Amino acid sequence: QAKFIQIRSNKLFETFVVTVIIFSALLVGVKTYEISGTMYSMAKFLDWFISAFFLTEITIRFLAEHRKRDFFKSFWNLFDTLIVIISLIPADDTELALVARLVRVFRVLRMISIIPELRILLVSLIKALPQLGYVMLLMFIIFYIYAAVGSTLFATINPDLWGNIIISLLTLFRVMTFEDWTDVMYETMEVYPLSWIFYLSFIFFTAFAFLNMVIGIVVNVMEQ
Amino acid sequence: QAKFIQIRSNKLFETFVVTVIIFSALLVGVKTYEISGTMYSMAKFLDWFISAFFLTEITIRFLAEHRKRDFFKSFWNLFDTLIVIISLIPADDTELALVARLVRVFRVLRMISIIPELRILLVSLIKALPQLGYVMLLMFIIFYIYAAVGSTLFATINPDLWGNIIISLLTLFRVMTFEDWTDVMYETMEVYPLSWIFYLSFIFFTAFAFLNMVIGIVVNVMEQ
Amino acid sequence: QAKFIQIRSNKLFETFVVTVIIFSALLVGVKTYEISGTMYSMAKFLDWFISAFFLTEITIRFLAEHRKRDFFKSFWNLFDTLIVIISLIPADDTELALVARLVRVFRVLRMISIIPELRILLVSLIKALPQLGYVMLLMFIIFYIYAAVGSTLFATINPDLWGNIIISLLTLFRVMTFEDWTDVMYETMEVYPLSWIFYLSFIFFTAFAFLNMVIGIVVNVMEQ
Amino acid sequence: QAKFIQIRSNKLFETFVVTVIIFSALLVGVKTYEISGTMYSMAKFLDWFISAFFLTEITIRFLAEHRKRDFFKSFWNLFDTLIVIISLIPADDTELALVARLVRVFRVLRMISIIPELRILLVSLIKALPQLGYVMLLMFIIFYIYAAVGSTLFATINPDLWGNIIISLLTLFRVMTFEDWTDVMYETMEVYPLSWIFYLSFIFFTAFAFLNMVIGIVVNVMEQ
Ligand code: NA
Ligand code: NA
Repeated sequence: QAKFIQIRSNKLFETFVVTVIIFSALLVGVKTYEISGTMYSMAKFLDWFISAFFLTEITIRFLAEHRKRDFFKSFWNLFDTLIVIISLIPADDTELALVARLVRVFRVLRMISIIPELRILLVSLIKALPQLGYVMLLMFIIFYIYAAVGSTLFATINPDLWGNIIISLLTLFRVMTFEDWTDVMYETMEVYPLSWIFYLSFIFFTAFAFLNMVIGIVVNVMEQ
Repeated sequence: QAKFIQIRSNKLFETFVVTVIIFSALLVGVKTYEISGTMYSMAKFLDWFISAFFLTEITIRFLAEHRKRDFFKSFWNLFDTLIVIISLIPADDTELALVARLVRVFRVLRMISIIPELRILLVSLIKALPQLGYVMLLMFIIFYIYAAVGSTLFATINPDLWGNIIISLLTLFRVMTFEDWTDVMYETMEVYPLSWIFYLSFIFFTAFAFLNMVIGIVVNVMEQ
Repeated sequence: QAKFIQIRSNKLFETFVVTVIIFSALLVGVKTYEISGTMYSMAKFLDWFISAFFLTEITIRFLAEHRKRDFFKSFWNLFDTLIVIISLIPADDTELALVARLVRVFRVLRMISIIPELRILLVSLIKALPQLGYVMLLMFIIFYIYAAVGSTLFATINPDLWGNIIISLLTLFRVMTFEDWTDVMYETMEVYPLSWIFYLSFIFFTAFAFLNMVIGIVVNVMEQ
Repeated sequence: QAKFIQIRSNKLFETFVVTVIIFSALLVGVKTYEISGTMYSMAKFLDWFISAFFLTEITIRFLAEHRKRDFFKSFWNLFDTLIVIISLIPADDTELALVARLVRVFRVLRMISIIPELRILLVSLIKALPQLGYVMLLMFIIFYIYAAVGSTLFATINPDLWGNIIISLLTLFRVMTFEDWTDVMYETMEVYPLSWIFYLSFIFFTAFAFLNMVIGIVVNVMEQ
């Protein structure tokens, strides 16, 4: 075990793991290009090598742990193990080939678990979320009411945009990002000439709530 | 009365009210989908049940009040009562059916009055508005002058965008959100090649006023 | 003179002036709609009345001044006088009719000079500008270099967007507002496949400079 | 040498250098317009004059330096020398003409090296970058994973947008700027109806990371 602990804390070993992760990310990128048969075989072999390497690395870290049960108490260990195990499942089947390729993409996420600064950053980002809880609930209520009103009034005008409440929520999100929102508005204004009030009030409410969300975070960060 | 006060402050009662509100929100959402005859009857019955429940709940809270006249001094009590009473008005008439459906949507707003944190948040948001009074007046003056100039110069070029001052204000708001603003500009530049000055100066003025509005809020919040 | 001073400081007089300004603003708005002959005559008469009233008001304020030469030392007095005098120039001539209508629009600006809070706000906004001096110069240099490079490389691809340096500056501003910027990019990428570097670097530089401008203002305001 | 130092610190000399830089910037602008033969000869002569002047100026500043090797220890001296030398390379060859014109554009950058305030501003902007290091790495990981997933799933739907990982990264940047992002989404939703989750989650992650980047800068600036 002492030997495994030694390997785990070896600077060279850490650097090598990061290198393999970057390499696996590049491999994911390369495979999005059309590649020749030889290249394809090589990519397949490299894929196998990366899987094997990750499995070895996890095993070393597991064996280096003093109390084995503590290993899975760490979120990041669980996270790494899950990604490695899933990417080990063979997927030569054409149906599962797509799923297998997607899983290999998520190996890039190991970059976050291996670099401590990224891990700390992510944790601090997630910790900032609950502070936004009530503003986000308020925002969701605004969205929900406008979506319900929108699909009640405009469903017959354009079912692709206002057909049901889910589609309406998507359309409202589009309006919030100002993406061709006037096209959406001009269409309903032909039937309800005053429907610009619907859009403008929605934009004002959401912009105001969003602004307060941002200011809320700034003030919270400042106080710490 | 002591019994009503007991019910009102019962944690289980509060949770049940929130559940019914969420349920009424879901019902509003479901009704935006095309539903079969059986489902429709069920939705109608549930609607009736929610109305009856809300009426009962308001009545309990009214009876639990020591001095009855104080009940209507609270904005939120008035708000709840109004929403409940309006949604009680029968609307089987096809003409009023749409209005009746819209009123039921606003029952979702009861979520705000029932959750204290949302109520506090909303009050603090509204309190921030008067501080913006003069910047918003300045912004409106900028909008009004540009809209008047726009509809004076461009009304003959595109009446749909610059026909009168209301339409021009809407077009300027669109320009402010950068929504296909160059299409609006290129059209008028064919007649007035220098009209880009109109749009760019407008964008600079409003962006600058908006920025000052945001900074104004941040500074105000910081000082508290 | 004592009488004029009395009138000038009369609260009722001030309110009346504000009312006439608002009224003149509404008149400007009404005139953007197609109006009948009777209405037109009435509007013309009201226009004349407003001009006469503003002239009287300025005269009263001028006569109420102790030392006449001090009157024109105030920017706002000069501003008001200029707007009133220009709107007095008769413009029945069809050629000047448009100019005359535009000048009447600017009477709305008197709202700023008459309300002290708006005057203070505007002065504080203008005072914030010099702090931005060097960031804006840097931004202009970025814009200028990219516009020069853009019109050198892309002028033959689309002269409407990159024909000369002025047009290129306008196109770059459009790219900065993200208004259909990918259409502009995809067009040049057909000739220069790497031209996405041009657009992305431009967006990064300007976004970064803009962000620093905003933060600069926030920090400056905080320090006061 | 004393004479060169005297010239270098002469206020008039500095002003003259700035004037020539502005003049060379204007010349770059003028050359983007179609110009007659006479004008062209004149522009060519002026170009030659500016090159000669810049060479003289750099030589003076070099000769005024006490220890010659210290001259090239300054980044800005190196920067100026490089720009001057490159623009001296003759480029009558039609193939190199375009490159020569582009190099002349970069002479405008000398404005930054000559004005101390701009130099300080740029240095402080660049110093702010490393603080953003890890947020930008996190953002790049998000982009990379979404681009890999995007080109795995959507490459067959629209190769122009999702053909390979580079194109996918560009498409995702476009989605992040909200530029016709719904067009991109609606297209893939026809094949994968749930692909809106892909876009919305991407927008939320990047917007959240971007917001934290901005707040990070604000807090860092405040602390200084
Ligand atoms: Na847009
Ligand atoms: Na757009």
